[in-house]
Parts: sequence; C-alpha cells; structure tokens
Amino acid sequence: MADAYRLGEGCTVDPGVILGYRTGRPIEFKPAVIGGGAVIRSNTVIYGNTVIGRDLQTGHNVVIREENVIGDGLNIWNNSVIDYGCVVGNNVRIHNQIYIAQYTEIEDDVFMAPGVIVANDPHPICTLCMKGPTIRKGARIGVNVTLLPRIEIGEGALIGAGSVVTRTIPPFTYAYGNPARVMGDIHDLECPLDIVDKPYENGLDVRTRGVEPKHTEGQS
Amino acid sequence: MADAYRLGEGCTVDPGVILGYRTGRPIEFKPAVIGGGAVIRSNTVIYGNTVIGRDLQTGHNVVIREENVIGDGLNIWNNSVIDYGCVVGNNVRIHNQIYIAQYTEIEDDVFMAPGVIVANDPHPICTLCMKGPTIRKGARIGVNVTLLPRIEIGEGALIGAGSVVTRTIPPFTYAYGNPARVMGDIHDLECPLDIVDKPYENGLDVRTRGVEPKHTEGQS
Amino acid sequence: MADAYRLGEGCTVDPGVILGYRTGRPIEFKPAVIGGGAVIRSNTVIYGNTVIGRDLQTGHNVVIREENVIGDGLNIWNNSVIDYGCVVGNNVRIHNQIYIAQYTEIEDDVFMAPGVIVANDPHPICTLCMKGPTIRKGARIGVNVTLLPRIEIGEGALIGAGSVVTRTIPPFTYAYGNPARVMGDIHDLECPLDIVDKPYENGLDVRTRGVEPKHTEGQS
Repeated sequence: MADAYRLGEGCTVDPGVILGYRTGRPIEFKPAVIGGGAVIRSNTVIYGNTVIGRDLQTGHNVVIREENVIGDGLNIWNNSVIDYGCVVGNNVRIHNQIYIAQYTEIEDDVFMAPGVIVANDPHPICTLCMKGPTIRKGARIGVNVTLLPRIEIGEGALIGAGSVVTRTIPPFTYAYGNPARVMGDIHDLECPLDIVDKPYENGLDVRTRGVEPKHTEGQS
Repeated sequence: MADAYRLGEGCTVDPGVILGYRTGRPIEFKPAVIGGGAVIRSNTVIYGNTVIGRDLQTGHNVVIREENVIGDGLNIWNNSVIDYGCVVGNNVRIHNQIYIAQYTEIEDDVFMAPGVIVANDPHPICTLCMKGPTIRKGARIGVNVTLLPRIEIGEGALIGAGSVVTRTIPPFTYAYGNPARVMGDIHDLECPLDIVDKPYENGLDVRTRGVEPKHTEGQS
Repeated sequence: MADAYRLGEGCTVDPGVILGYRTGRPIEFKPAVIGGGAVIRSNTVIYGNTVIGRDLQTGHNVVIREENVIGDGLNIWNNSVIDYGCVVGNNVRIHNQIYIAQYTEIEDDVFMAPGVIVANDPHPICTLCMKGPTIRKGARIGVNVTLLPRIEIGEGALIGAGSVVTRTIPPFTYAYGNPARVMGDIHDLECPLDIVDKPYENGLDVRTRGVEPKHTEGQS
C-alpha cells in the first residue's frame, strides 16, 4: 500500500492507523497527502483523495473521509469524524466526538467543542442539495451544539453549549438556546470568575491574547 | 475462533474487526451470523448471538451487541453502537456516532442522522422496564436528536435536528423542538432552495423517488 | 513497554488495547496503574499518569487520558472518553459515547446515560479557568445531556434526557429542559408503567433497592 498515501517528514504514526483508505464511492483513487510533523494516534483512518497540511494532530479513532482539503495545524481529537468533501482552514480545532457533515466549510482558527454535530440535508433524504454550514474565521462552537445546513456562523461568533442553530449568526455575537437566538456582542461578555477583565477583545480569546490571570482563585 | 461466527459469501472484512465477540452477560453463546455481501470496516466489533441479513455495510469502529435481529441492507456508519436485544428491519441507515439503546425496534427504511441518541429507561437505574422506542417504517430522524423510551415515531415521520422527542409522533408529520411538537404534515414541506417541487410525496423522499433537480443552483 | 503500566491480578485485556500511552502534554511520565479484575475491551487506550482501582470494565474504543484518579468498579462503555485531570469515585457508570471534560469531579455511584457531554470552559478558548462540573454521589444524568462548567449536580439528583444544565441542581430533585429547570423531588416520581410503586426511595433507585416488579406487563 506504499502508493496509498504520501506522508511528510517527521511524522508519528501509531499502531492501527490506516492511511489512504479507499472509499466505496465511485471516484478515481488518489493517495492521501499529509504534510510533515503529523502525530496520528491509534486507529485513526484517513481516506485517499484527501490533502492535509503540516502539523496535523489526531486523537484516537478519528476518521477523515475522502475529498477533503485541510490546512495546516488541524487538531482533531478522539472519535471525531470529518465526512467527505469539506474544506478546512488553518489552525482549526475539532475536539472529541464531533461529526462534520459532507460539504461543510470551516475557516481558519475555528474551535469546535466536544460533541458538536453538523447537518447538511434540509429534508432528508435528499441527495440534490446536500451542503453543510459555513463556519467563519475564529468562530467558537460550544459542546453538544447542533448546526443546521447552509447557515453561516459569523467570524468570531460564540455558540453556547447545547444550542440548536437554525439561522445565520452575525460576526462577533454570541447566541444560545433551541433554537439559538443572538443574545449580545462577545466583547460585552465578562469572566464569571473575574480571572480576566474581558474574555474577548478585538474578537480574540484569552488564550490567543496570552492574557495573565488577575488572581488564581478558582483556577485549576 | 472459527465457530465464533458464520459469514456469507463475498464479504470484505477489514483489519481489526472482531466477529462473534462474547458478551459478559450470562447467556449461552451462539455464533454471530452475517449474510453475504457484507463490507465490515476497520475495528468494528459484532457480538455473538446476533443475526444480520445480507449486504451489511459498516463504517469504522462500529459496535453491534448480542441478541440483535437485523434485516438486509443495514448501513451503520463510524463509531455507532447498537446495544443488545434490538430488532432492526431492512434497508435501515444508521449514520455516524449514533447510540441505539437495548430493546429498540426499528422498522424498514428508517434513516437516522448523525448523533441520534436513544433512551430506554424512564427512571434510571431500573432494570425492570427497560425498553427503547419503536421507529416505524421510513421515519427520518434528524441530527443529534434524543428519543425517549417507549415512544413511537410514526411511519414516514420527520424529526428536526436537535429535538428531544418525549411523546409519540403521528405518521407523516414533522416535529421539532425541546420537547418536540408536531408542526405539520411532511407533504406540505417545501424545498427551501426550490431544487425540487416537493421534498415528500406519498411519504417518499427525493432520493427514493429519484427526482431530477429543477435547477442546479445551490447544489454541491 | 513493560514499564508503561502496572496491571493487577486477574485482568482480561483485548487485542488493540494500549496501556500507559504517553501524553503529548509536557509532564513527567508515570506508569498507568490499574487494579485487579479489570476487563479492558478492544482498542481501549489508557494513558500513563492515571490510577484506576479494582474491577474496571471498559467497552470498546474507550479513551482514558492522563492524570485521572479513578476508584473501584468503574464501568465505562463504548467510545467514551475521560479527558485528563478528573477525579472519579467508586462504582461509577459512564455509558456509551460520553465525553468527560478535564477537571471534572464525579462522586461514588453516579450513573451517566449515553451521549452525555460535559463542558469545562465558560468562555472558550480560555486556559485559565478550565474546570468541569461536580457530580455528587448517586446522581443520574439522562441521555444526551449537556453539563456546563463548574455547576454542581446534587446528590441523588436526576437530569432528564436531552437537557442543557446551566445551573446547580439541588440534591434529590429532578430537572429537565433547555435550560434545565428543577421540576420536583425524585421521591414524588411514579413509574409510568406501574411496575414498581416508587422509582426512588431514600434516594435509591429500583436496581439498587432490588425491588420486585408488581407485574410483568410492559417489561422486556
């Protein structure tokens, strides 16, 4: 299977990993192409006909299907799946137990928390209009959120845990509920523990800004 | 382990697959019986004491427990689990990251979208009245839906993404929300992209009817 | 890798299991320590720097990360994940497809139903205040429930299926919805099938009390 994939330099590949898996869909096979510096953990499966940039990190049991175009620095954790035909930018974080539906578009710096499930079919089963949502640069999606097809999560927007998002969410706003409603601007949010002054400034989170804590009470 | 399972002709079995796994429950072991034409992907585990028809297709890391009776043409995708004691009809599609609770009944042609979680215990932990829902022929369950124990999803009914279904849903209706409420008849639904005239006719979806698109705008 | 883990007597370890996996986080490696009587099913991964008591039972494809301290009798089923830095008591049951976030605390006798997702970051991404909820002794969490960071689920409390729990829930109450609201005392709940007189007495469920059924109608 030497021609099933091309792997860049300095990669770590665990036992049970399969690279360049052949889809059952009727397309011409091309090798999986994976950039250097990847760490691919046990039992991960990456299909052929997918191109991934440098510094991929996977958890265990990850599945990345065919015909995906993925940038540098993807982190995708345990038991998560990217179905076929998606476009994923740079420095995207897809946490545990997430499902990314076919034809979803995820821009740079997006963070998806555990258990996010993405839909792509407004009236199942239809094979004519299948398309996932578009998740703009730096958006943050909370745990166990459901995203409906073809909506847009605006740049830097924040979706609260357990929400069902049925409509497009404007940039730099936060929304939650079932159905999710826009509740305000992320820049007005405050830290409930007063560990930092503002969780978000200029659309950037605490980690990205490298903020120092005001005190350590309540930290773990 | 030659007597742990019986596999029909023309099957494909990936590395890491375990067939005829022995349950820890105190029952007499019988081989797993799997019909011809199966494609069983990597690290799938199918327990003994389960019977599956022809043309099974699994994704990666699927678990099918003991004492299940499953028809022909089951598609069950990555990381999904069917717990023990279920009855599953023909041509059922169980997508990614789904959990089917013990003693659930799923009729022919049912479609379950990614992340559906099924319950079977009205007041946990009780071992006296454990029973899942009954999902009637051709019903379609949206992504990340929660189904409560012992309810019925009517024939051809459609459950919207992210719903929590606490009561029986009549045939050919659609319902959504937490708790899910019936919102109308599936035959009154329209295609939001005007790609087809009607998503559902005579209870059948676009794919089943083989509908041609009116235009290709908005398709992917 | 003989020094990657220490395993007690009488353990069963399936093919594909990895014990004492090395985290990518910059900590000094210590062996995984797992007590006697464990049954560890296929493709489970248990990281180093974690200590687990006697009689562990895992399903398939389970991941238990580093720096966890876990008591006796943990049952953790298929495709579930415990992230790093958690404290888990004795006789805890973590069912299928569950995600336990870093720095979550779970006391003795807790039951978590399939698909529960736990959060630990009130304004992602922040690395300064990451902390999961505290789930008190004997609490029962329904299927597909979302738990927000730093809340407390009180002793013996019951959370209904599909709920999003945003606030602390008092002991021995039941709550449901999005957001979850307290709806009553668990001792006032009745069996919808009249199989038992009271599902909960003195905070204990049917199984724990070893109740006999009043009749067998409706059982499976």
